[in-house]
Amino acid sequence: MEQYTAIQEIKTANTKYDLHENIPARWSPRMFSTEPLGLEELNALFEAARWAASSNNEQPWRFIYAFKGTPAYEKMVRCLSDFNKKWARNAPVLLLTAIKEKFDSGKSNYHALHDLGLAMGNMTQEAQSRNIALHHMAGVDWQKAQEIFGVPEDYHIATAVAVGFYGGDASELPENLEKMERSHRKRLALEDIVFKGSWPAR
Amino acid sequence: MEQYTAIQEIKTANTKYDLHENIPARWSPRMFSTEPLGLEELNALFEAARWAASSNNEQPWRFIYAFKGTPAYEKMVRCLSDFNKKWARNAPVLLLTAIKEKFDSGKSNYHALHDLGLAMGNMTQEAQSRNIALHHMAGVDWQKAQEIFGVPEDYHIATAVAVGFYGGDASELPENLEKMERSHRKRLALEDIVFKGSWPAR
Repeated sequence: MEQYTAIQEIKTANTKYDLHENIPARWSPRMFSTEPLGLEELNALFEAARWAASSNNEQPWRFIYAFKGTPAYEKMVRCLSDFNKKWARNAPVLLLTAIKEKFDSGKSNYHALHDLGLAMGNMTQEAQSRNIALHHMAGVDWQKAQEIFGVPEDYHIATAVAVGFYGGDASELPENLEKMERSHRKRLALEDIVFKGSWPAR
Repeated sequence: MEQYTAIQEIKTANTKYDLHENIPARWSPRMFSTEPLGLEELNALFEAARWAASSNNEQPWRFIYAFKGTPAYEKMVRCLSDFNKKWARNAPVLLLTAIKEKFDSGKSNYHALHDLGLAMGNMTQEAQSRNIALHHMAGVDWQKAQEIFGVPEDYHIATAVAVGFYGGDASELPENLEKMERSHRKRLALEDIVFKGSWPAR
């Protein structure tokens, strides 16, 4: 636990502006506490996601969840990239997130992925308030997952997500992953992503 | 102000689970307080967005902002749909959000829109903590905006966002919009968006 506190400190962002404590403290661990995550907590996360904004209030987000120790969980692990397979089983819960690709009118919903992101942002906020970490994974074989989990073709799996309480012991991870847990989070400078009045000339 | 409190009450979500107060209280107004929003507050919102997670830590999010009363603001208004033009000028600040569509390797970044959504989720959390509202708009002529604001072709404008402190007087809105401010927020049931172990048969 003392070790974890040291990692949490490394991962906490140094912000120039005074932000809500959830923002600098959030990070994407590859290790989790052994404390189990219950259905009550999981449902609170889903309900947070549910209240996000979306284009035309379409709510294009869908979620499949599995608890560790169930066949569905093992099936999810099998859909992950080799890299993610090395650590994702540390999480007590795995999710698959999916989007509904079209409006009921049949028109393509360009903003579906954006809106799923907003919903996951809401989920992140609720999770962080409960000391629960989310680790989003792009490295998932979505076509394989689509088949295994019976996802209809008008939906598209977007990510897998590892969910669990913050904690765990970094030294139990493979060496290259342990190093990642002990490194500072890095971001582009604000002036590289925020422009006043127009895009900068280049 | 008393009137606004009544609207805030209508808009607050009735949640089954006990969520962080920011989640049920957030909504997307078409009216705003006359209190101006300063650059310090705006930068805090951008810094919150900056610390979101992203695929490969690519940070594909970009933002252009404009304060009311500036030429850039009027240019943004001109890019909005006719419907959004009816109310967006109530906001002291307008943003355009954009994504970087490809990784530096040239490979398409499928998750860019999702990750922009995560960043906007972070921004939402910080905003809500400061009583600032965001109203995301899909109704923006992105090609026109792309041209007017000099956005390079490897970036893609995703949304416009109205930003301002919660408040304002709904009765000053056109009648159909006023009605929307006074109606409850609606969402799909949790069981329609969350599935245990596999997609439900249909």
